[in-house]
Amino acid sequence: MIGREERVLAAVSGGKDSSAMLSLLVALSGELGFEVVPFHLDLGIGGYSEASRRVVEKLSGMLGLKSLVVSVRNVLEMGVPELARRASRPVCAVCGVVKRYFLNAAAIGLGFEAVAVGHTADDVSAYVLKAFLTQDWGGLAKTSPVNEAVDGLAARRVKPLFEVHEKELLAYVLSSGLPFVDRECPYAKLSTLVFDCRKALAMLERRRPGLRLSLVRGIIRSRGIFPASERPVRPCSKCGLISSGDVCSFCKLTARALGEPMGARVREYLSKLSL
Amino acid sequence: MIGREERVLAAVSGGKDSSAMLSLLVALSGELGFEVVPFHLDLGIGGYSEASRRVVEKLSGMLGLKSLVVSVRNVLEMGVPELARRASRPVCAVCGVVKRYFLNAAAIGLGFEAVAVGHTADDVSAYVLKAFLTQDWGGLAKTSPVNEAVDGLAARRVKPLFEVHEKELLAYVLSSGLPFVDRECPYAKLSTLVFDCRKALAMLERRRPGLRLSLVRGIIRSRGIFPASERPVRPCSKCGLISSGDVCSFCKLTARALGEPMGARVREYLSKLSL
Repeated sequence: MIGREERVLAAVSGGKDSSAMLSLLVALSGELGFEVVPFHLDLGIGGYSEASRRVVEKLSGMLGLKSLVVSVRNVLEMGVPELARRASRPVCAVCGVVKRYFLNAAAIGLGFEAVAVGHTADDVSAYVLKAFLTQDWGGLAKTSPVNEAVDGLAARRVKPLFEVHEKELLAYVLSSGLPFVDRECPYAKLSTLVFDCRKALAMLERRRPGLRLSLVRGIIRSRGIFPASERPVRPCSKCGLISSGDVCSFCKLTARALGEPMGARVREYLSKLSL
Repeated sequence: MIGREERVLAAVSGGKDSSAMLSLLVALSGELGFEVVPFHLDLGIGGYSEASRRVVEKLSGMLGLKSLVVSVRNVLEMGVPELARRASRPVCAVCGVVKRYFLNAAAIGLGFEAVAVGHTADDVSAYVLKAFLTQDWGGLAKTSPVNEAVDGLAARRVKPLFEVHEKELLAYVLSSGLPFVDRECPYAKLSTLVFDCRKALAMLERRRPGLRLSLVRGIIRSRGIFPASERPVRPCSKCGLISSGDVCSFCKLTARALGEPMGARVREYLSKLSL
């Protein structure tokens, strides 16, 4: 996933999964010879975001790392909920687009070879089930612990926790005394299909221990059978980062919500940050 | 599914789904010009099988049909539970093999073009989910409302209820005053993965009405993407009916349980029945 001498930008939300990931990456970085920098995006979700940010700063300090903390509000003049309201789109969908864009733009702007995200076996199995239930074959075709870099458009994206269950990560952060936000995002109670898929898989797992892991591994092994999206990736005509069409999802979203695409402004803001 | 002048052998268990199917096939048979004969297999599961048989005889009488009732015990000298015990295999798996074999052997032996089974959208969606969770791509590739006949080896197999929910069928049998067994098979409480998949899908359906139907239709439309089994079908070397290997599942099962393959004996017994 990560080569020697490489620099990895680790997305850290303050939740137990990404806190565990950061600690594990730090533990491995010496032996494997890579460098890890925590990246936290303040989403502007009131007290939840404030608590998350404090956790990430504390955790980074404990691990002896300087973290990169970016606030969506500083660049877009509003948080994710307001952005979603203006775009008339579901908060969770908007949040996904924003987090993915900022992380990749930061990695490209600051010269990181890879980004690491804390998706667990619980997450990946739920994405995979949702993709099956909605016949999103392109989504299944892309299921992988490593999505390779696309030159100048996207950094390599790795999921070091894709075979780890969240129960294991909870045990790890508790026994290691790592800080993590133990409240949920206030929007997490919105019912999404992925959320219901997690519940269904948790029920099935209780009856068939190992089912989620064997599903994740099975789909990764067999993903070649699913027809991938036929649209080749190319540079967004507005911001120059990865896109499947003329304009990327983030530029489309911000154009809709704010009247103009904001990708280029985000890129400029991030490239000026000092580590 | 069923052509004019064709004869269809309808598998009727006595449960609400196949009772509804039989009544619907009879209602359509005049206009569409086909003939339908009910086929009931007495599985030898104590009082449950006795009650089921009585329901099928009553239902056939109400619909003005002469039914074909065959008892597993009359041919194999034991019921399905004893067969499963001797084969050291789960009862539900053995029951599936036995029902499928008898139905096809009866159709081939008595010259029926097609068999009809009462699989509902609830059933098909659960099979499909189980196949995905276990990466049974061959099973997904075969998902279809119509499995075509294989000359001399298998009759066409059709599922007229594949887009109908069981709640609708319950409403239909109740409002039509059709008899059906309202107790469950005593083995149904054994937890199988298909059973848990039904539960998971029922939960998802409550949150996303239409999910099961769109899954069933989506998989049937897309089934061509899944790699089908590479083993061509051929005649079983013991009984001559359809098999994916040298010996068919039924002959293997009976050889294991009883010391000799019983397919040929079942075929001989069934071909002598008079309608």
